[in-house]
Amino acid sequence: MADRPKVFVCLTPKLLDLYDLENTVVVVTDVLRATSAMVVALNKGIDHIVPVQTIEESLALKKEGYMAAAERNGQIVDGFEIGNSPVAYNTLDLKGKKLAITTTNGTKAIQLSSRTEKVLIGAFINLQAVVQELKNLQQNVVIVCAGWKDQANLEDTLFAGAVVYHLLPKFDIKDDAAFIANKLYEAAKDDLFLFIQNSSHYSRLSKLGIEDDIRFCMRTNMYTNVPVLKEGKLVNL
Amino acid sequence: MADRPKVFVCLTPKLLDLYDLENTVVVVTDVLRATSAMVVALNKGIDHIVPVQTIEESLALKKEGYMAAAERNGQIVDGFEIGNSPVAYNTLDLKGKKLAITTTNGTKAIQLSSRTEKVLIGAFINLQAVVQELKNLQQNVVIVCAGWKDQANLEDTLFAGAVVYHLLPKFDIKDDAAFIANKLYEAAKDDLFLFIQNSSHYSRLSKLGIEDDIRFCMRTNMYTNVPVLKEGKLVNL
Repeated sequence: MADRPKVFVCLTPKLLDLYDLENTVVVVTDVLRATSAMVVALNKGIDHIVPVQTIEESLALKKEGYMAAAERNGQIVDGFEIGNSPVAYNTLDLKGKKLAITTTNGTKAIQLSSRTEKVLIGAFINLQAVVQELKNLQQNVVIVCAGWKDQANLEDTLFAGAVVYHLLPKFDIKDDAAFIANKLYEAAKDDLFLFIQNSSHYSRLSKLGIEDDIRFCMRTNMYTNVPVLKEGKLVNL
Repeated sequence: MADRPKVFVCLTPKLLDLYDLENTVVVVTDVLRATSAMVVALNKGIDHIVPVQTIEESLALKKEGYMAAAERNGQIVDGFEIGNSPVAYNTLDLKGKKLAITTTNGTKAIQLSSRTEKVLIGAFINLQAVVQELKNLQQNVVIVCAGWKDQANLEDTLFAGAVVYHLLPKFDIKDDAAFIANKLYEAAKDDLFLFIQNSSHYSRLSKLGIEDDIRFCMRTNMYTNVPVLKEGKLVNL
């Protein structure tokens, strides 16, 4: 009988070079809010998303006809009309448009992960769709948490734990970070929003008046689309 | 009224440069087994311990009359009589001797932390003594987990969580890693040994036949001494 595939959790992008990504599916998550916004935008019929590292790259793509988005430290960058608010994306007409986006943590994590063959984008709002795709693929999985400026954060670790939780027992846990994330999710799963209120990022974001976004991002399984990276562009699977 | 001091958890030495160590007490932990062994050795009357990074440094100090210890990947290095087993240290006559020791993860974490003024050595076996000292000092605290080859591990994260748990509410949590560690400890505290059996390091170590060491290291508050780093040497506080 074949071995079960293994699931690993990379708690911050700074630890990514410790993981073997060969023949491995990477799931990048930045729950608050980049990957949640990407799921929403692609669900609303956007043609594709280009995640970029810098504000200049986002502006350059604007000149080529892209909608351009930029967020730093939780706020829309001056000169841009959109940032990474999933609630805001939900109010826009996005059908057939193209989006370039740069964010503090999420787009960096995607870029660093792009050396592997298959990169999926996950958030609580498309949790079950991601889990189902991983079960279909039956390959080893590394969940890459975007974190906050290279440190681990609560919400991304929780999402990683949720994926591990739902992959068990069909996948094996072989690293302690995956074990820790799973235990954390078990402690939080009955009320994710209540749990997240203790996080440092929650206090940063709630000061910015975006509690609606946080509530939205902590809801599970509202969407069934799974963004996937193809030649530098995010499209629906 | 003065602000409460803050407690941070650095999940692996690879993340240490993200932390501000100025006016901060660092607690280094490598529960399985380096810091547990250090607590035992100093409790048994050893004069001081020199933690070194390489096998060559340990051998060089042997020529100067030190007991020399070396562990790599859970095993005593060829040519050495001792490694990092606290149970083994407990059987030796150590009174007045000097020890040089190098281990896979623990001594590296101590070395990296040594740029700060005050470095304490913690393990479950001296948990309350460490907590009491931190409460006395009333400074910010960073708990540095030695981890396993730059990755987070379960037992060190649990110990960090135990320290956080016992410092609350007299200290504030300002990073998510400390929050995560505390939640993990809350889930594990009723039976640490049972909980740890799920860790990757447990399966590595139990294959080496050192379950006695693991049981020993997961017991709390057997010792009241707190090793502290003074000019490159560990002595009791």
